[in-house]
Formats: sequence, structure tokens, C-alpha cells
Amino acid sequence: MRIDLLKTAQLIRSNDNILILTHKNPDGDAMGSAFALCRTLCQFGKRVTFKFFDKIPQMPLKLLECSINENFEFDFIVAVDTADAKILGDDVDNPYKDRVDLSIDHHPSNTFFAKNTYLEETAAATAELILLIARELGVEPDVTTAEGIYLGLSTDTGCFRYSNTTSRTLRMAADMVDTGIDLGEINQLMFETKSKSYAELESMALSTIKMYFGGRCAIMHISQKMYEKSGSDETEIHSLSSLPRQIEGVLAGVTIKESDQNSYKVSVRTKAPLDAAEICSKMGGGGHKRAAGCEIKGTFKEARDLVKKTIKEALKGVKAE
Amino acid sequence: MRIDLLKTAQLIRSNDNILILTHKNPDGDAMGSAFALCRTLCQFGKRVTFKFFDKIPQMPLKLLECSINENFEFDFIVAVDTADAKILGDDVDNPYKDRVDLSIDHHPSNTFFAKNTYLEETAAATAELILLIARELGVEPDVTTAEGIYLGLSTDTGCFRYSNTTSRTLRMAADMVDTGIDLGEINQLMFETKSKSYAELESMALSTIKMYFGGRCAIMHISQKMYEKSGSDETEIHSLSSLPRQIEGVLAGVTIKESDQNSYKVSVRTKAPLDAAEICSKMGGGGHKRAAGCEIKGTFKEARDLVKKTIKEALKGVKAE
Repeated sequence: MRIDLLKTAQLIRSNDNILILTHKNPDGDAMGSAFALCRTLCQFGKRVTFKFFDKIPQMPLKLLECSINENFEFDFIVAVDTADAKILGDDVDNPYKDRVDLSIDHHPSNTFFAKNTYLEETAAATAELILLIARELGVEPDVTTAEGIYLGLSTDTGCFRYSNTTSRTLRMAADMVDTGIDLGEINQLMFETKSKSYAELESMALSTIKMYFGGRCAIMHISQKMYEKSGSDETEIHSLSSLPRQIEGVLAGVTIKESDQNSYKVSVRTKAPLDAAEICSKMGGGGHKRAAGCEIKGTFKEARDLVKKTIKEALKGVKAE
Repeated sequence: MRIDLLKTAQLIRSNDNILILTHKNPDGDAMGSAFALCRTLCQFGKRVTFKFFDKIPQMPLKLLECSINENFEFDFIVAVDTADAKILGDDVDNPYKDRVDLSIDHHPSNTFFAKNTYLEETAAATAELILLIARELGVEPDVTTAEGIYLGLSTDTGCFRYSNTTSRTLRMAADMVDTGIDLGEINQLMFETKSKSYAELESMALSTIKMYFGGRCAIMHISQKMYEKSGSDETEIHSLSSLPRQIEGVLAGVTIKESDQNSYKVSVRTKAPLDAAEICSKMGGGGHKRAAGCEIKGTFKEARDLVKKTIKEALKGVKAE
């Protein structure tokens, strides 16, 4: 059932032992939202914990303090920033994924897998919804909670660069800054720091970029060999996938990553008028208007050919500049 | 004389024919502030024009419409975002530089070259001061003026990444977004667009990075061959020199560029406690605390060896993490 903010707050009020989950390979919005919700509900007097079923990526330090693991009987399970139960983890690892009571999310592709779903597709980040919930519960974030909210807001907007940033996002960020967070420190770690192995992987990946369709499509690929050679497992928050779209004139920037033998993860980033979610849905995936993904089985050549064919189709009727 | 916001507004009110200037090699804050002030004063009923004595860099399109050149007698000259009269242009080109009536600026290094100076060193951008002045005059920016203010705010904060960003900066940005500006479009052009040739040069340069002194120094080099092969002349706004410092643990990120036979331009970027200006002064150059440069004659190996020796010296007594 789709529910609104008021009903979400009511649900939370009437449950006392709460487990918070988020998706695998968590980004700053997943981590920041889970962390901020956890702290907010603690402040509101609930017993709360959250569990991750994945390696936690490098994040601003204080955030890691949140991985408390208390053992108590959960009577209410919340998933944040998670569009589909599938990405909560494998059955074996995550016994809770089919028992989610409340999903708090901003992905238009949310599958309504939870009993209740509070979804705001126009929110730039799930962290915006966490702040709305906190305020509805009468809890104003302290500086530590504010770091989580800020991390979510900044991660999902490319630090307020992308067109999903609204004036509400910016005002919420301003409110978090007023609590005393050190935004320079957070942003340096999130946006201006790379591991040596990541920098090496980036360098190798950049050298593979090929242009198609009069420069309107750029395709980059990353092989398992590159992961091995660089030593990077790409668990960092930085997204290599954003690089191909940065080239002038590119409307579709694609990254094809070899995930294992005969399987490729494809990430598509677009500029207007191309719709990344539409393109990826034609290849069995989904996502947002400007950033989406899918998985393709087959050889690299087959994956790339399918991507090229789909994008060629999408470019039909789009005027070259 | 140093004056405050109220006095600044009074001065503007009592003058009707106004010339606006800004510094050479103008960035987004210089252009955006000049543009927004020009439009604000027009709206307030003044005769205004502004003149540039330099090539205008690539900027969001509508901003270029501002270079109106009306010929009328100026009785009041304003310089925005300009710390020193010297950088307004050469005597020959800019006959107005010693006649500035009002300087509106946020640089702590402002030399008080103007008759009156409205300086707020804690403002992240001069654009913040332009918005304060507009509001003091009772003029709220329309969408086109708002683009100028937003461009200034975002440029000088690295799109709200750097620690100079305050909650006021973010709220002002939110207000500009509410006028209807397309922030995604502005930011894409300012922060997310690279030419294909630049992307190629970047990829080649990244692959040369070598680490020294336990990972605390990263050295990248760019040869004339790389410029030729990529076709990039590196006149874009992006700075390759910022890349080596981004690697985790690096305190000194160095870029050595072959400028011609037997001559190398060296750029040094540091993190605390290393002082880039100090390091470069030992090699005959200078600059700021975190970004400085010098020129070294000799072979590449000689240049690199001198850099390594100097940085090794600077790292003495700096604890490894």
C-alpha cells in the first residue's frame, strides 16, 4: 500500500522494536538515510538497529559508529532507499527481505515490495524523506544525525550539481549546515578523494572510451582484468559511470562492466532528451530518467551491440547539435 | 574607505550612470556578479553598462547576452570580485581602472584600491553581496538575474563542495532555484563537460601517476607528445593539476608539464601540513599555501629529481598516517 508522510509517522509511532535495512553496495544516500533514521528513532524512544549485508564502503568516519548490532526481537522492518527486495541481499544472508513493513524511497522504479511504501519520486534523495519524517515526529536532527542527512542529500545530487536538486534539497542542506557539520571535510572525503587503486582503474577505464553516432554516445568498459590489475574492487562511492557522459556532445554515456563470465552490468547516464530508464527498461533494467542500469548476459561484444542498438533507436528523431 | 551594505546601497541610489568592471580572465563569480548587478541596477532605473577587457570564457549561454555596450557618460564606476586594480586590465585597454568609485568584493587580499570598498571576507562569493545589495534596493532577482547569482555562488564554492560554503550560500542558491533557473543545465556546462580531446589527455596523464615516499607524494607528467596526440591545448576550465592530490594519503600532488625542449612547468598541490608555496619557492617559484608552481630547466629526469628531493625535504618531520 502506498502511504503518505502522516501515515508513515503514525506507523512508526505504533511500533517499538525496529530493524532498518538498506540495499547492497550502499551509497551515501543509503548509508546516510539508514543512519539518520536509526538515530532519529532512537531519539524518539524506539529500540532500533540496522543491519547491512554487504561491505560498508569508505564513508565519513562518524557514520561508521552507527553499525550497532543489538539483538532484540524486531516487530517492524523498514527498508530505506531500496527500490526492490532483491537488492536487499541474498535469501541466505538476509532473512528479512520478504518481511519489510515499510519502504521509504525515492526511486520511481520502486516495486512496492513492502507492506507499506512511502515513496516521493521527486525527492532528490531518500534523506529528504528521512528529514521530513523526523520533523513529523518532532525530532530535529543533532549534528551527528545531520551528517547522515547531508551525506544522503549530497551523494544523490552529485553535491547539488544534478538537475534533481530542488530548492527544498538546498534548504535542507542549509539546515544541516546550521547544526554545525563540517561540509568541507565530508565533501573532501566523498568527492575529492580516491584510492590509488581506484585512480588506476579510472585511468584504465577512461582509455577504453569509444564514441558512436556522431559523438552522441560514449561507451566505456571495465573488465575483470582491470579490476585485478588495479586492485580496485570499486566499492568506493565514486562512480566511474558518470565519466562517459561528461564528454561534450554526449547524450548517452554508457559503462559496461564485466561482472562475471558472460554477464555484464550496464550503466546508462543521459542528457535531455534521452531517458535512461526508458533505454534500460528495453534491456530488462530500470532506474531514473538520467541514470539507469541493466544486466546483459552474453559476450562483451553482444552486450555492447545490444546497448548500441538500443541507444541508436532512442536517438532516432533527436536532432544532432 | 570601507563601507557597509547600507552605505553601498545609498551610494548606488545617488548615482545614475554606472559602469561595471570585473577582473581579467573572469570566472563564474566575476561574470555572474557583474551580470546580476548590471541587470539589478537596470531594473532599479539606472543607466548601466559593463565592459570586459578580456576574452569571455565558455559560460551558460544567456549570460553572454549581457555584454551590451551603450555609450553614455559614466559618473560612477563599480568593480566587482576584484581584489586589485592591477587585474582590471592594462592601462591602455582599461582607462577606468584608477577611477573606481566602489569595489564590491569578498577577497581577503583586497587592496582597497577603490574610493569605497564593500568587502565581506566570509562571503563564499561576490554574488552573495550582489544579492544582498539587490534586496537592500528592493529588487528581487528575476530568473535571468538569478542565473548570474547562482553561477557566482556555485563557481566559487566548487558547486557547494568547499568549506567556504555557508548555510546562507545554500539558502541563496535555493532562492535562485525558486525563480525557475535550470541548475542542472548550468552545472552540467560548468562542472560536468569536457571536450573529447581533454578527456583523452586526462586519461593519458592519469596513467603516468607514480607514488613516492610511502604514498605521500604523487607525481603525474604530461609530455608535448600527449598534447599532440590528444589534440588538447588544455585551455579548458578544468585543471588536470588537481588530480594527483585527490589520491588517498597524498600530501603533495605534483604535475610536471613539458613546456618546450628542456623546460618543465611544475604545479604542486598540497594538503595540510605541507605548504605548496614554500616548496615551490625552493625551486624558484611561488603561489598559495595549497597550490603553487615553478619552472625547471633541464631534462624530465632532472626536473622530477629536483621535485622529489624538495618534497622529501618538506616531508621530513611530517608523521606518516
